[in-house]
Amino acid sequence: MVVNNKVDSLSYDVEAPPNQGSSAGAAAAAAAAAAAAAAPPPAPAPAVSHHHHSVLELHKVSLPERRSTGKALRQRLAEVFFPDDPLHQFKNQSSARRLVLALQYFFPIFQWGSAYSPRLLRSDLVAGLTIASLAIPQGISYAKLANLPPIIGLYSSFVPPLIYSLLGSSRDLAVGPVSIASLVMGSMLREAVSPDDQPILYLQLAFTATFFAGVFQASLGFLRLGFIVDFLSKATLTGFMGGAAIIVSLQQLKGLLGIVHFTSHMGFVDVMRSVFKRHDEWEWQTIVMGTAFLAILLLTRQISARNPKLFWISAGAPLTSVIISTILSFIWKSHSISVIGILPRGVNPPSANMLTFSGSYVALTIKTGIMTGILSLTEGIAVGRTFASINNYQVDGNKEMMAIGIMNMAGSCASCYVTTGSFSRSAVNYSAGCKTAVSNIVMASAVLITLLFLMPLFHYTPNVILSAIIITAVIGLIDVRGAAKLWKVDKLDFLACMSAFLGVLLVSVQMGLAIAVGISLFKILLQVTRPNMVVKGLVPGTQSYRSVVQYREAVRVPGFLIVGVESAIYFANSMYLVERVMRYLRDEEERALKSSQSSIRCVVLDMSAVAAIDTSGLDALSELKKVLDKRHIELVLANPVGSVAERMFNSAVGETFGSDRLFFSVAEAVAAGACKPQP
Amino acid sequence: MVVNNKVDSLSYDVEAPPNQGSSAGAAAAAAAAAAAAAAPPPAPAPAVSHHHHSVLELHKVSLPERRSTGKALRQRLAEVFFPDDPLHQFKNQSSARRLVLALQYFFPIFQWGSAYSPRLLRSDLVAGLTIASLAIPQGISYAKLANLPPIIGLYSSFVPPLIYSLLGSSRDLAVGPVSIASLVMGSMLREAVSPDDQPILYLQLAFTATFFAGVFQASLGFLRLGFIVDFLSKATLTGFMGGAAIIVSLQQLKGLLGIVHFTSHMGFVDVMRSVFKRHDEWEWQTIVMGTAFLAILLLTRQISARNPKLFWISAGAPLTSVIISTILSFIWKSHSISVIGILPRGVNPPSANMLTFSGSYVALTIKTGIMTGILSLTEGIAVGRTFASINNYQVDGNKEMMAIGIMNMAGSCASCYVTTGSFSRSAVNYSAGCKTAVSNIVMASAVLITLLFLMPLFHYTPNVILSAIIITAVIGLIDVRGAAKLWKVDKLDFLACMSAFLGVLLVSVQMGLAIAVGISLFKILLQVTRPNMVVKGLVPGTQSYRSVVQYREAVRVPGFLIVGVESAIYFANSMYLVERVMRYLRDEEERALKSSQSSIRCVVLDMSAVAAIDTSGLDALSELKKVLDKRHIELVLANPVGSVAERMFNSAVGETFGSDRLFFSVAEAVAAGACKPQP
Repeated sequence: MVVNNKVDSLSYDVEAPPNQGSSAGAAAAAAAAAAAAAAPPPAPAPAVSHHHHSVLELHKVSLPERRSTGKALRQRLAEVFFPDDPLHQFKNQSSARRLVLALQYFFPIFQWGSAYSPRLLRSDLVAGLTIASLAIPQGISYAKLANLPPIIGLYSSFVPPLIYSLLGSSRDLAVGPVSIASLVMGSMLREAVSPDDQPILYLQLAFTATFFAGVFQASLGFLRLGFIVDFLSKATLTGFMGGAAIIVSLQQLKGLLGIVHFTSHMGFVDVMRSVFKRHDEWEWQTIVMGTAFLAILLLTRQISARNPKLFWISAGAPLTSVIISTILSFIWKSHSISVIGILPRGVNPPSANMLTFSGSYVALTIKTGIMTGILSLTEGIAVGRTFASINNYQVDGNKEMMAIGIMNMAGSCASCYVTTGSFSRSAVNYSAGCKTAVSNIVMASAVLITLLFLMPLFHYTPNVILSAIIITAVIGLIDVRGAAKLWKVDKLDFLACMSAFLGVLLVSVQMGLAIAVGISLFKILLQVTRPNMVVKGLVPGTQSYRSVVQYREAVRVPGFLIVGVESAIYFANSMYLVERVMRYLRDEEERALKSSQSSIRCVVLDMSAVAAIDTSGLDALSELKKVLDKRHIELVLANPVGSVAERMFNSAVGETFGSDRLFFSVAEAVAAGACKPQP
Repeated sequence: MVVNNKVDSLSYDVEAPPNQGSSAGAAAAAAAAAAAAAAPPPAPAPAVSHHHHSVLELHKVSLPERRSTGKALRQRLAEVFFPDDPLHQFKNQSSARRLVLALQYFFPIFQWGSAYSPRLLRSDLVAGLTIASLAIPQGISYAKLANLPPIIGLYSSFVPPLIYSLLGSSRDLAVGPVSIASLVMGSMLREAVSPDDQPILYLQLAFTATFFAGVFQASLGFLRLGFIVDFLSKATLTGFMGGAAIIVSLQQLKGLLGIVHFTSHMGFVDVMRSVFKRHDEWEWQTIVMGTAFLAILLLTRQISARNPKLFWISAGAPLTSVIISTILSFIWKSHSISVIGILPRGVNPPSANMLTFSGSYVALTIKTGIMTGILSLTEGIAVGRTFASINNYQVDGNKEMMAIGIMNMAGSCASCYVTTGSFSRSAVNYSAGCKTAVSNIVMASAVLITLLFLMPLFHYTPNVILSAIIITAVIGLIDVRGAAKLWKVDKLDFLACMSAFLGVLLVSVQMGLAIAVGISLFKILLQVTRPNMVVKGLVPGTQSYRSVVQYREAVRVPGFLIVGVESAIYFANSMYLVERVMRYLRDEEERALKSSQSSIRCVVLDMSAVAAIDTSGLDALSELKKVLDKRHIELVLANPVGSVAERMFNSAVGETFGSDRLFFSVAEAVAAGACKPQP
């Protein structure tokens, strides 16, 4: 559909042949030079002999093909909810083939299972045993972080990995409890119920929160709302994780120093006060042992970080430390070193009967579920995407969410708390050469054997070693280099990062998270309310108009104010747009007055970068035109994109700007404006 | 600062003189044609004899001048908080002149006061008396809408207009109580306190809420956060106002039908049930009188709407109706028609002692204050801007907010409730030929005379006439044509409008408002999360690359995938960006396979429309490059804007893309890509 057919009225001699594409541009340069002839511009303009009646071919602003309302809406919704086009592979297939594809879609195990070979199994076996040696001590430790009995951590390393290996599409994810989600669950539930005084109630709440987390995660995936996790920006997550890691490490001072009476609060101030007020409880044997093992663990971590081939040193260190420290503690039998104690033997008991959906704690468990759900989802999805990109395969975010959600819902009925793909263990899994989700099955089997036969061996494991393991695990979350990069690149991102960091550290974990999300959203809204707008000039030697601030060689066209708008025009910024253009106009007229140039008689809005416009935006354009008309200044638009052009012609604004105020490009607008005979 | 100096390595023969601006473009066309020579593209490509070693001058991507962190931050903040550059007029002035300007800035009355003339006074006198005749019956009516005694409505039409005439910068605003704010205050306070059972407490809460509304409004202005009102989009306001108008009209059925026992709820269902359950209370005398006057009022409204010169007919009708109906009711003296009753004589009593800042209702009054504050602000600012634009003068939004805020704070101490500039009365003020804020002083004087001497005359004014006046006033808020326009132009805006409308009508006024704001924000976030991306091709006869969907004549360049990104690249959309490019790549490769064209070997991201990028966005670009590298496809960027280029070179991404992957324009990227000798 042709909306601006100025060719008829303005191409004087002949239509330029299509291979002489520069006619409009040359005319534009000529026009600029012609206008400049009266009063020389501040910078040297392209020197061209001007001839008004040269070949001037103006191109047309096109509209995209007209779609019905239904089709337009369908395409829009498809882009929002199915940007990955998941049904692409089903196109042009027989129905039998489609069934197989659907089965493979929902259970990816059918996809890689048929091609599984002994060679792959050997790789997965090595990787699985390696992550098991890490998962067992970490499982016990993280459960303590959530104020849960250590055995829950092992249960959570058994059932969820099995479910994930059926449903998950990542080959590298190592599933189990993670530190951040454990910390958040522990701190949120502890505010309402004491895990020491009411252990059964606390356990019920933990399982119920896990169930809600699963429901929330699966719904996000099912409703294709996966993009919500993208709203936790990396900058704020860096701050949040760093703060949480410090909080977690400080909490471990309890174990490391052997303090018995410790604060239940999470804040930096409370913990430090508790540490120093209770210095009479400091226990030198515990401190010596803890410090020694912590030093060893940090050292092995350093070695593996320096040489990634030696990943197995840091991967094996925690289990080795647990074994050695347990033997030491067994020989020593000192009463001053607190130990884990008796752990029940056997696989996960069912816990569906412990889920409680009524009573005064429902709101709390829902809140905790959503919080831990979104955090564990963010970690799991990010880990999956990272390793998928390294190994060059695709992970469907929404499907992963459903897999993780179902895994947590099932887990909550089998004495497991919130689990997801762990950053650190997935990295070890990858380094150890895992090939498929079978490594998770191997790990689960190792945990099963532990649960069935090895539990008594943990009786004498000192608690201090768990603290050392936790500190070593979370210390990697403190990303000082990442924060420094933020400072260098984007000050506002750095501010968001620091706010989240200090919020977690000084106020509370939830507050830190709320601050992080709030700042992320505010930043988006700020960008929308105050969009970039630039004054453009002709870059000499081209027909391109660019920002005069960025390209200092760009030359303003006398008599023209060319403004580029670099944002969608919305209700939130339409008033600003009008005011900003008027301010540019004032400044340019002052400049023209000073250098005694001709005053502005045409404002060109370069709409190339305006991705969308709403009704308020359209009104703002009409408004701007009205104001400029009163000052006898023309307003023309250059290069509106399809959806914007479409919308303009569906509303009265299309008539206002008509076909003679809409141009293919800034160059053509300038050319036409200059060619127009003065009234 | 030069970041891409490819001229040295690629301009073979000579530098083209600046007036031959088309060299790069011609080379691009040549390159496209050259690539097309191997396999013909689906649409006819520009036929150009290709000569690879032609003059090829590539332009440089510039960075804006380097600014210090402090300066950059200062400029950014200035753009956010002072987009209107309020200190502009103070530049280059003597200090005495500055003092005068400052005084005029804070008290605009000093600006126009000195030039005030008898001619202006005559215009203002006529306009002031006209709006007074409207303000007195509306003031009484709107106070009843807020469940307040009628006299409060008159008090509120006396003090606030006087204060505004000193501080306000709009010449056309007619200040006083308005329907929407009255309705919201009435419905929010009534939920907690019954105005019939505890009239004094209710009055205290109303004054306190008014005070908080004023504090909120003044703070928004003082903190330069005026842009917050822009977040109530016109679409959602249309829906909200329409719903509120219907709710208000339905409430008036109580007065129109003479029902005594009426529901205190606002919802559509409750009101209709109440109307029909109480049909035994319907009072025929009231119904006849109400219907007659309503018909007359609506008729006069129609007449004035058809012929704007007859504005005085609808402006005078309410007061005339009050007078006639009062006389009728006085003569009739029927007990079945309820009348206003005794009103106290005298000016506003002080009410500062009634403000309560402690106790259980503080949260309610703050909430009510913020809600009514933002709604009345939205109306006042919009009215001010509308008439400023008609009369071609500027209104400073933030200063207006301070004026309205101070007016309400002062009002709350002088027995006034929330006031602002009214849409309908300002329109009458304008039509009646007002010139300055003196018309508000005239109106206040007329109200003063009424308060001092004419109060007993209102004794026999029937309540039914107030209901008729309210209905006539709010019926104009139902903008069916506006809603139809929304449907035509923007389906999502229409959805927002209808949700707000139904939310108000079926749930509650506050819920409707919350839905309106929520949808407005969600729409912004959606646009940010799912930005427009288009595949571009060369428009024949130009050197411009445009969307192949919009310009169907545009020709894809074989071997190239040119993708335009039409949004800032943010954490919220960076993952989408990568996935979308990969999907385009898949589609293009399938298309190439089908038509046996050469496969894609270069992806050009056109960054012209990317206004900003954050750290996640930079990471996404690196990520995309890594993925494409694995598939031996080059990724180059064209025309990054200043801030984006700056940020890229401050981060590691700058090194990744180096100087040979960053081009001045798509045309030059294509030209350089095609010229590059194949490995």
